[in-house]
Amino acid sequence: MGKTTKTGLAWKGEMSFEAEVNGHKFMIDADEAVGGKNRGPRPKPLMLSALAGCTAMDVISILKKMRVTPDEFYVDVEANNTEEHPKHYDAFTIYYKFKGKDPPKDKIEKAVNLSQDRYCGVSFMLSKAADIKHEIIIED
Amino acid sequence: MGKTTKTGLAWKGEMSFEAEVNGHKFMIDADEAVGGKNRGPRPKPLMLSALAGCTAMDVISILKKMRVTPDEFYVDVEANNTEEHPKHYDAFTIYYKFKGKDPPKDKIEKAVNLSQDRYCGVSFMLSKAADIKHEIIIED
Repeated sequence: MGKTTKTGLAWKGEMSFEAEVNGHKFMIDADEAVGGKNRGPRPKPLMLSALAGCTAMDVISILKKMRVTPDEFYVDVEANNTEEHPKHYDAFTIYYKFKGKDPPKDKIEKAVNLSQDRYCGVSFMLSKAADIKHEIIIED
Repeated sequence: MGKTTKTGLAWKGEMSFEAEVNGHKFMIDADEAVGGKNRGPRPKPLMLSALAGCTAMDVISILKKMRVTPDEFYVDVEANNTEEHPKHYDAFTIYYKFKGKDPPKDKIEKAVNLSQDRYCGVSFMLSKAADIKHEIIIED
């Protein structure tokens, strides 16, 4: 058995919840169209930011060990919504976008592949539910 | 094909990233122990708050249709961390905690079960990766 991670949230009326994660508090809320007040993100898209953050941290940390520092680095995630219940994502695409002077494509590809194949726990879990594709975009 | 959901994040130096989800911006960051500055939550626990938020919204929305309004409602999630790479969660427990005057246990159980069995997309996806247990705690 490994360590246990705990998170919690408290109902704040209507569709609003205050979540606490690693001591940081933020709101989760529904859209006005379904009775929310849009006080914070929706839960399912929030899961996509967990996916983006997990692999982004791996990549920047592996690149640091390779002594590669991009000028800019972005990770976008697109997911396809099913129309039937339980409404979920049945396909993911992760876009890794790097900007910098003469970015070393081979090292960037290696870092992304190491994250996807070996290190990113969120990718590992979500890959059990749906296919995760990725694209690397390098701009001078 | 259903609709596409997009989220993105931008690197802000070291292990910090600014995420944007449904127009709401927040930081994701690593712990000081691994080179972060703890400017925001870690990505993997953030996924747990997505799980908690998803099922919490279902439950409060189903209870509303049943004309049940708890005085207080909390959802906590515990997950067990694996020690080997990719470090991920291999077991989840969701604690649904209700406080109120004479809360109707049967309706609460029905609402929780409908979320877990039929509506919560995050539970559906993560259940492909690990077993999700739940407990209902009702306090007067």
